[in-house]
Amino acid sequence: MIDEIKFLIEIDKLKNIFRQTMVLNGIRQENDAEHSWHMAMSAIVLEKYHNETVDMKKVLKMALIHDIVEIYAGDTPAFGTHNPNKYNDELKSAEKIFSLLPEKLEKEMMNLWLEFELLESPEAKFAKACDTFQGFLQNITSDGHSWRKYKVKESAFCKRMEPIKLYIPQVYEEVVLPELEKYINKGVIERDIIK
Amino acid sequence: MIDEIKFLIEIDKLKNIFRQTMVLNGIRQENDAEHSWHMAMSAIVLEKYHNETVDMKKVLKMALIHDIVEIYAGDTPAFGTHNPNKYNDELKSAEKIFSLLPEKLEKEMMNLWLEFELLESPEAKFAKACDTFQGFLQNITSDGHSWRKYKVKESAFCKRMEPIKLYIPQVYEEVVLPELEKYINKGVIERDIIK
Repeated sequence: MIDEIKFLIEIDKLKNIFRQTMVLNGIRQENDAEHSWHMAMSAIVLEKYHNETVDMKKVLKMALIHDIVEIYAGDTPAFGTHNPNKYNDELKSAEKIFSLLPEKLEKEMMNLWLEFELLESPEAKFAKACDTFQGFLQNITSDGHSWRKYKVKESAFCKRMEPIKLYIPQVYEEVVLPELEKYINKGVIERDIIK
Repeated sequence: MIDEIKFLIEIDKLKNIFRQTMVLNGIRQENDAEHSWHMAMSAIVLEKYHNETVDMKKVLKMALIHDIVEIYAGDTPAFGTHNPNKYNDELKSAEKIFSLLPEKLEKEMMNLWLEFELLESPEAKFAKACDTFQGFLQNITSDGHSWRKYKVKESAFCKRMEPIKLYIPQVYEEVVLPELEKYINKGVIERDIIK
């Protein structure tokens, strides 16, 4: 059992990995542990909007572990510079951290993480939509903090929000698109898609 | 759908409810969102030590929502002054926050929270053990911060750790008891149980 405890102590470090998103209407940056919790909560309340039936136990596990790799690989800002080595860095990090666990759990965690990264199942797709949605939510409660910081244009915004459009389309139509219009009208997001 | 979004925005406040436990070897206090994430992770990796079969989807949902009531009711320190109104305050808080959700989800969340509070199922018992264990973990990684602060005696410690003893006994024997001895020998926890 000592292995599980070592793992639980090591992942405490996720509370110190900070994201570009802000919490509590913009008072401070959010960390990955808080984000993972909030993403899992999004999955719980948005389940009925996903267009496929999912195994929620799997979705919740994916949400809880999906960012643990950032303990060694660091956070990649949603709208920042592209890191071409991101996947490989995170894969190495996943192998390192999950190797702390007993073999059976190590395999389960590794497979869940890969399934999420590669969007290989309805669960992974729904979890990805919730991941993106949680970031969106922290932006609409902080007056578009990351969108302002990275001078995000409409096309980049829409590319980023694609998992929401594809996997929880009603949420995209009823929540994301109206906010996009709002932030375009506010002059925060620049319109660059001709309709 | 707007109801679910309102709920997701309101629970952002959990990231601002601070506990007595410290994160990252004692650098700062832990908040309830981080704690809930870490408790859910504990449930994932400690499942096999629970003495009954559990529905993990339910356990994870319980872990994720169990402290949401503290948004209005506040945190009750594990070793601090007893608050006789705790349950009623939290019940009112649960009714208030879950009422933001559509009826079906509101009922599910309310029932899960009550089941956890009243320890009414194998899932609730296991979740409670993980809740207690996560607090224990933050203490052993911060040189017994809360145990020192509240001058905790052996009997109070053992009373607090009872869910671990009852529901994940192997963890109690192999992890909790050796740490208790260590902290008694260090002079942090005072021995008051005659053997």
